[in-house]
Amino acid sequence: MKATSNVHEPAAPAILLHRISQLVTMAGGEEARRGPAMREIGLIRNGAVLISGGQIVAAGAQSEILRHPWVRRHRRELIELDCRGKLVLPGFVDSHTHPAFTAPRLIDFEKRAAGASYAEIAAAGGGIRASLTGVRSSSEAKLADHILGALHQAQAQGTTTVEAKSGYGLDAASELKSLRAIRSAAQQWPGTVVATFLGAHVPPPEFREKPDAYVDLLCREMLPRISRGGLARYVDVFCEQGAFTLAQTLRILAEAAKHKLRTRVHVGQLSNTPLETILAARPVSLDHLDELRREDIRALAASDAIATLLPGANYFLATKKYPPARKLIDIGAAVALATDYNPGTAPTISMPMILSLATTQMKMTVEEALVAATINGACALELGARKGSVTAGKDADLAFFELDDYRELPYWFGANHCVATMMAGRFADLG
Amino acid sequence: MKATSNVHEPAAPAILLHRISQLVTMAGGEEARRGPAMREIGLIRNGAVLISGGQIVAAGAQSEILRHPWVRRHRRELIELDCRGKLVLPGFVDSHTHPAFTAPRLIDFEKRAAGASYAEIAAAGGGIRASLTGVRSSSEAKLADHILGALHQAQAQGTTTVEAKSGYGLDAASELKSLRAIRSAAQQWPGTVVATFLGAHVPPPEFREKPDAYVDLLCREMLPRISRGGLARYVDVFCEQGAFTLAQTLRILAEAAKHKLRTRVHVGQLSNTPLETILAARPVSLDHLDELRREDIRALAASDAIATLLPGANYFLATKKYPPARKLIDIGAAVALATDYNPGTAPTISMPMILSLATTQMKMTVEEALVAATINGACALELGARKGSVTAGKDADLAFFELDDYRELPYWFGANHCVATMMAGRFADLG
Repeated sequence: MKATSNVHEPAAPAILLHRISQLVTMAGGEEARRGPAMREIGLIRNGAVLISGGQIVAAGAQSEILRHPWVRRHRRELIELDCRGKLVLPGFVDSHTHPAFTAPRLIDFEKRAAGASYAEIAAAGGGIRASLTGVRSSSEAKLADHILGALHQAQAQGTTTVEAKSGYGLDAASELKSLRAIRSAAQQWPGTVVATFLGAHVPPPEFREKPDAYVDLLCREMLPRISRGGLARYVDVFCEQGAFTLAQTLRILAEAAKHKLRTRVHVGQLSNTPLETILAARPVSLDHLDELRREDIRALAASDAIATLLPGANYFLATKKYPPARKLIDIGAAVALATDYNPGTAPTISMPMILSLATTQMKMTVEEALVAATINGACALELGARKGSVTAGKDADLAFFELDDYRELPYWFGANHCVATMMAGRFADLG
Repeated sequence: MKATSNVHEPAAPAILLHRISQLVTMAGGEEARRGPAMREIGLIRNGAVLISGGQIVAAGAQSEILRHPWVRRHRRELIELDCRGKLVLPGFVDSHTHPAFTAPRLIDFEKRAAGASYAEIAAAGGGIRASLTGVRSSSEAKLADHILGALHQAQAQGTTTVEAKSGYGLDAASELKSLRAIRSAAQQWPGTVVATFLGAHVPPPEFREKPDAYVDLLCREMLPRISRGGLARYVDVFCEQGAFTLAQTLRILAEAAKHKLRTRVHVGQLSNTPLETILAARPVSLDHLDELRREDIRALAASDAIATLLPGANYFLATKKYPPARKLIDIGAAVALATDYNPGTAPTISMPMILSLATTQMKMTVEEALVAATINGACALELGARKGSVTAGKDADLAFFELDDYRELPYWFGANHCVATMMAGRFADLG
């Protein structure tokens, strides 16, 4: 494979990662990958990466990069890092998380082990509403600390970009507080955080009998304030029985568009919702998708929307059934994978764990799973031009694993082989 | 809860672990726990442990331990460790692993993602036999290094005692080499290793047409040499279609007994085998047990044998069905949990991952899972008097987690919150 390089000379100091045992570049375009292209990971054995100013200057085979004009002229000024025995990937893009909570939901967890269903736990006052009290009574600083802790844990497993949703406040003050806490945590973390407003998670208890009034509040008060404050890039809606109806979902998506906010939708987790009208609103991503009719799979594949699958929830809830990854990929949908990190249904922030679930339970190939966790995740956040591959001009966001072969990453499950993470050209962790 | 203490004064230097946020003692006997007793974990909030000479001198509530006569007289000589914010458990006892291999089986893994079954992979020359070449051609030192690497990974997740099987050599020289490699690795590791001879894993290729001749070789040549060399405490047999028949299994168990070797059996992983005659041979543990008839569950509960469940294999093979833990526990069988660490069907050495599988997929309570992973695992290795609980007189084998609540251990899946492991009173790792 030919080395990629841009025309500019790097500003010193520059870093040369070399003798990388396996370098997964994902080279080949900034668009989401579909179908057979989901198996193209741009693997280079004995690879090298030249980094400067937080960006990738060149990446490719060791021999190509050592011939790079800048390397030849300035080799003595380079910081060289020997990466023998290391697997290097684009940092994972975790494009769906709910980190704005304050405590684990251990009672829900115990109830479920005793046989209660997700719906039964929710009906008993557990579920999403159980996290409300903690968030509403928490200070912004305490909430930001909790979110920052999650970002550090994500980074320790190779994640460098995280989408972070509000959604456990569910009143104007608490949702704004959650989004400010996300912004505050993001400022203290060297990786990239994309904020999403999920006021439409479930109607809060005080609106249980009048959910439309909550949608009014969300559209008339929350959305304008969030837009004005620049507190979120995306608006998300949980379209589901017990959450928001299709009509309410479409109304919120339309209002978001008026405020120039981009959209994404939780849909098909517990029951089937026809996707046609949702897709017409042009959300960037549809997430969960456990319950899909054949025509919805076709519609998804024909659309620009990313299908973001979240098998951590299926695992934790022991649903037996997982999202139909094979059908989606085989028909040409662009599939991304994310953790769904949240205290009720997916208490994991480990992308390697998600890769394990994808390859064992959903029969994705290792290559498809890696594409879904990097470049396609980046595209699910409209960051395909900056993130998700190790190619010239992109942010130097990399994950380093003490592994000989990329296939070992999902294979050794329940283990963390990540020894370092680089974000914007800086090492955040060295194991 | 009253502090336990023995009559002897500790030999200095002694260690006092104090202010432990949650101390899970498992206090209350050295026998395997059954039924409702599997929920008794001996939880102490604000606990303390006094350790000397590699053993536990006293463990209990902080206030009790501080009144211990030895502590009162010699407090200045104690090494005190503040364990605020820590969860402390008896180190996990992983009572079923296959670490004597040299390479991951990535091709099997890929074939399975592409839809091949365990039986199809085995029939195609993959499976257990695929690991033979590596082990047969490996030096004893290289094999020992690989095993030691696995022991270090186990310890990093809180495991302090490991049962380690041979079984990828399948000729006299390679099985003896594997057991010597296990002994060598054990000597380099501060934890406890129990060696098991699993020459009866599958008949090797050269005996495919004459498996009885392999059983002859195993009984006449291998068993006597292993017994004379003191190379294993246990003999294990994989009783299954494609491995060894019930008659062959019973013959090997009987021969093992003649050589004063204790026994354990892999049974019911892929197909059902009536347990009555196997139980009559008094094996210490029956392992896997995915396929059980109702009368076998009753027979197991009525016997002394431990039912060792290995959900890592069910997960990795995506069998959907898991061993019937609830039925076994509810009828009074003594259940243990182990990783089954091996390159083909369970590439994990993480006991926290197994606790996650037990609580989410098998509906064990967190307490039952912890009992199964500590005191019952110790009893599955006949080490109940030395391991598996934090009580006076037992080995000071402890695992320290950065968690507020023991229920978080299986809850946050795909994460490793273990920050230190103590084996025989010595810290092996401090995060």
